[in-house]
Amino acid sequence: MGGSLALALRGRCARMVGVDRDPVAVELARGAVDFSTPDLASGLRDCNLIVLATPVRSILSLLSALQSLIPDPQPPTSNLRLPISVLDLGSTKASIVSAMDSLPPPFDPIGGHPMCGREVAGFAHADADLYRGRTFVLVPLARTSKRTRVLAGELVAAIGANAVELAAARHDALTAITSHLPYAAAVALMQAALSSNDDRLWDMTASGFRDTSRLAASDPTMMVDILITNRAAILDALARYRTELDSLIALIDRADPEALSDAVSPAQAKRSRMFK
Amino acid sequence: MGGSLALALRGRCARMVGVDRDPVAVELARGAVDFSTPDLASGLRDCNLIVLATPVRSILSLLSALQSLIPDPQPPTSNLRLPISVLDLGSTKASIVSAMDSLPPPFDPIGGHPMCGREVAGFAHADADLYRGRTFVLVPLARTSKRTRVLAGELVAAIGANAVELAAARHDALTAITSHLPYAAAVALMQAALSSNDDRLWDMTASGFRDTSRLAASDPTMMVDILITNRAAILDALARYRTELDSLIALIDRADPEALSDAVSPAQAKRSRMFK
Repeated sequence: MGGSLALALRGRCARMVGVDRDPVAVELARGAVDFSTPDLASGLRDCNLIVLATPVRSILSLLSALQSLIPDPQPPTSNLRLPISVLDLGSTKASIVSAMDSLPPPFDPIGGHPMCGREVAGFAHADADLYRGRTFVLVPLARTSKRTRVLAGELVAAIGANAVELAAARHDALTAITSHLPYAAAVALMQAALSSNDDRLWDMTASGFRDTSRLAASDPTMMVDILITNRAAILDALARYRTELDSLIALIDRADPEALSDAVSPAQAKRSRMFK
Repeated sequence: MGGSLALALRGRCARMVGVDRDPVAVELARGAVDFSTPDLASGLRDCNLIVLATPVRSILSLLSALQSLIPDPQPPTSNLRLPISVLDLGSTKASIVSAMDSLPPPFDPIGGHPMCGREVAGFAHADADLYRGRTFVLVPLARTSKRTRVLAGELVAAIGANAVELAAARHDALTAITSHLPYAAAVALMQAALSSNDDRLWDMTASGFRDTSRLAASDPTMMVDILITNRAAILDALARYRTELDSLIALIDRADPEALSDAVSPAQAKRSRMFK
């Protein structure tokens, strides 16, 4: 996500610095940013916008480390330096926005989440067009300045995405259904297939299985962070899913063609209209 | 499926006839076959291979209609005409193969199922390369002649697919997991999303939701036929899926990152290796 953002922002920032603890990513990022480094402290020097693009629990660690990494970001005697805007790209928002709220005043945080996940990670898969046409959720805090809100909106527009402001809880309830539930459904599908003892099974998979299981290939670190930090909303979404699944099972058991057709048709109609 | 087969076989048959009850499809098929007609009886005249490419319950109707449609296909006094091979492309096999077994002796049936479904139907979506590199299951009956078995194998090879012979019950148990379960999972996902009252939800869907829900757009007639004719195997697959889902729900509820990571990693490893 961070690599794709750097590519999408190329030529649109006065100066861009990339920080990654992996030296290979630092090397790969050289062409995309003005300076890349594995050292967070030197990377953050003189920044006026920090974008945190890591799994959720790493974002939480980075937020608590920020203060010590930038000693005295705004000396109380000086009004010359601007506050430092902090935006994240994390997949869940309530825990991050709450941690952001504890940042000392020189930091000016806003939550963010672009709706364009991929099941592959790393700079090698970075794509300048990843954000184009996608919804980019912004979650301003009560303390977020107008300046940072506008800056975040300009960043979203610069990469071709559509900004939508949402409260953290609403974001988390929605993504539990649109993103985290599909992941759980894909994992359970893979597990059901893995529990079969027929080794012919894998030759029998076609595009339907491929697509329905795709999210199960997502990075476990990223996904476990999501499952833990959005636990309550995900359990709600799963309860809703299980209810729908149980109704479908009961209908299949009854084997009434008309009742089955009536049950699956609204999903078919909506899904056919959604993506062309 | 039938349109794609006609395109894939073009130039490889002495004569190809297309039959569809929809006049629009008959018109569209003109370029792909030597003769196309909405009239089944005239379409079947002088055929030595009949391929039934319709939803499962229509295949069952066609099989029971075949005898009357081809009056006296092999006069008992003549040995000049070859038996008529009958192949189907239906998604479930036990009920079809059982119906095939009741065909009178001039018919020489074999079950078939190419593993390359699409969520769009109709000749307008036909694709000559649909079968290329895909598994094509053949289900010979005890009565199937060597000649028809070889002919079906030649047809599979001609369209670039890989023939795999399976018993009907094994085919149905495997596709219940690889194909019908993903469909049910996709429908339940769409239903869970539709039951949400937040109209922002649809803006929040990205590629993960798109792919996981794709099969829900499948033609209801085709899918209801599958759910009904493969009911027992699908209920088994759904019970297996529900068990996996419930384990995952319990793990998310416990919120132990290491246990969660251990649980999702085998699915991630297998899925990453499967499709590149």
